[in-house]
Amino acid sequence: MRAAAMRNKRIVVIDAPEPTPGPGEVIVKSLACGICGTDLHALKNAETMVEVSKRTGGAFDMDLSRDLVFGHEFCAELVDYGPKTPKRLSAGTRVCSMPLVLRGDGAQTIGLSTEHPGGYGQFMRLTESLLLEVPNGLSTEHAALTEPMAVGLHAVEKGRIASDEVPLVLGCGPVGLAVIASLQMKGVSPIIAADFSPRRREFARVMGADIVVDPKQNSPYQSWEEAATYADPSRAPKSEPPIPPAPYRPAVIFECVGVPGVLSAIMVNAPSLARVVVVGVCLEPDYYEPFFGLTKELNIQFSIAYNGAEFAATLRNIAEGKLNITPLITGRVGLDGVAGAFEALASPDGHAKIMIDPWRTETA
Amino acid sequence: MRAAAMRNKRIVVIDAPEPTPGPGEVIVKSLACGICGTDLHALKNAETMVEVSKRTGGAFDMDLSRDLVFGHEFCAELVDYGPKTPKRLSAGTRVCSMPLVLRGDGAQTIGLSTEHPGGYGQFMRLTESLLLEVPNGLSTEHAALTEPMAVGLHAVEKGRIASDEVPLVLGCGPVGLAVIASLQMKGVSPIIAADFSPRRREFARVMGADIVVDPKQNSPYQSWEEAATYADPSRAPKSEPPIPPAPYRPAVIFECVGVPGVLSAIMVNAPSLARVVVVGVCLEPDYYEPFFGLTKELNIQFSIAYNGAEFAATLRNIAEGKLNITPLITGRVGLDGVAGAFEALASPDGHAKIMIDPWRTETA
Repeated sequence: MRAAAMRNKRIVVIDAPEPTPGPGEVIVKSLACGICGTDLHALKNAETMVEVSKRTGGAFDMDLSRDLVFGHEFCAELVDYGPKTPKRLSAGTRVCSMPLVLRGDGAQTIGLSTEHPGGYGQFMRLTESLLLEVPNGLSTEHAALTEPMAVGLHAVEKGRIASDEVPLVLGCGPVGLAVIASLQMKGVSPIIAADFSPRRREFARVMGADIVVDPKQNSPYQSWEEAATYADPSRAPKSEPPIPPAPYRPAVIFECVGVPGVLSAIMVNAPSLARVVVVGVCLEPDYYEPFFGLTKELNIQFSIAYNGAEFAATLRNIAEGKLNITPLITGRVGLDGVAGAFEALASPDGHAKIMIDPWRTETA
Repeated sequence: MRAAAMRNKRIVVIDAPEPTPGPGEVIVKSLACGICGTDLHALKNAETMVEVSKRTGGAFDMDLSRDLVFGHEFCAELVDYGPKTPKRLSAGTRVCSMPLVLRGDGAQTIGLSTEHPGGYGQFMRLTESLLLEVPNGLSTEHAALTEPMAVGLHAVEKGRIASDEVPLVLGCGPVGLAVIASLQMKGVSPIIAADFSPRRREFARVMGADIVVDPKQNSPYQSWEEAATYADPSRAPKSEPPIPPAPYRPAVIFECVGVPGVLSAIMVNAPSLARVVVVGVCLEPDYYEPFFGLTKELNIQFSIAYNGAEFAATLRNIAEGKLNITPLITGRVGLDGVAGAFEALASPDGHAKIMIDPWRTETA
């Protein structure tokens, strides 16, 4: 099959072996697959990712001496069954799935492991029990947004955001935009978001952010404080003396940047008692100043991926139009265009999400 | 008045000016005052503490060019009233209080600020509205343990520990022991605790730890895992597919050490989904590896001090014998003995808590 693969730290179009299905597994045609920031990360810092993965349970089973086919944000078409499959869905059905293959010894990652090629290839191996049928009328590309959007829903669930709380989303790349969309779907208001890129700020507004801040111009924390201050201070919840009632609603800060130094800056600037949800994936060691955490009694919740229920709910919410995905798809490429798409995505001022169609033959 | 004070980074006995009471304030005689790890920290790293305090809201208003009288864990006797005090309690009443003076512009720290001398001096200025009468029959020294024990209660409250959860207490100095005592009081079982010092491990056992680990001999995490594993795996709560049910009960890890590197080691070794309560006070910048937090979806809750309700409950619990404080007081000194007590407390293998009686005249 044709595939865009990582070989010697570059993206090249190759002729890859077609995956074969094991027991309980199916073969699908990849119809559309998004390029994720993690793929960019993996291409640039493959060794770090392998080393960090080895120390943290082996999520990324990457053999860098071999070709690796990325792609974990996909919509696909059911083609054939392996042994011992109940054949719940018929061939030709469009499906989504969490990018996991369930084997006896646990879940293995698709698209970030050498063993299981992802949606940048024409065919994939999936686990039948994880397949979700794409509802009629939902476009293939929109269905392929299920995975990145589920990351946002999971982060919001992990943040346990209550009606009185006011979110601040730092970073409006695809992860931040997914968080904003889930916050909006849940009726949280106002949503404050910040990004240095004008293009991303524009996306944030379209996705549902009420107040969008350029950190070069204004402090996101100052903007948050203005938006979160009780108009009528007597409505603030009672506090435990001698602590005076808080002048503003509680803060839930979503860290959607994922580079060293961001969490530390949040701890320095966050209001007292803020909860921080870390969604950005930072692979490097980082530093922080514990005393800021202590004096403010901050809470830091790390959040990664999603569970099966959240993934299925996200597909449903997209299909029912509850989850805003309007501005997300900004580019489309065939396999020949993937390397160029990676270069384009390195800048925050261009695209949100670029979709790969591994069957498209013309160049991008 | 006589007082033990910090002068040029040393503890010396001085003749200090007696504090005068402002509106709403009273003058008390300090009857007993514990030496806190924070006092040791402040003596050793005064500049760091001043600098960190300035950047985090000014809790420690310390002018290092002047004498500073430590002491925020005290029991005292009411002596005299300032203006505009309702005179709720009569002179001679024994009282405890949070170590705070409430002024128009907020709460100011007692015993860690130059303005408000603490219990290492013969007299203190307290805010009348914060006074708690010591119940009849409770010894003055035990009442003086209210403050450090309230720190433990607050940490346990912040940890929101549920009946199925199993705590691991790392570090069995006074903070760790206070956490253990509150966990035991709340009926949490089993309690696993770890410390490198044999003496502290002995204290931990007397305070209520069920399993006490020497990290030089055994991994505290391994001991925790053995204790927390479901005897009957079918009783484990259902998990969200494809995640298998956890083999052990959820973990709540109390960080009661407060030196750089501890939180990072916890993140590397903690089980998935563990909640970490940081109670140890680390003034230095620290490092961590975010990817361990992400892959395990850890939650980190910073905890400092207590609120008024927790402080009052702790005094009541001590008086009613609900909170185990049996082994805590291991030494008693007058003011001449304070400098020596600081030296003794630098080793973990000697004392738990040394009480100062600023009126005692013989040397220690």
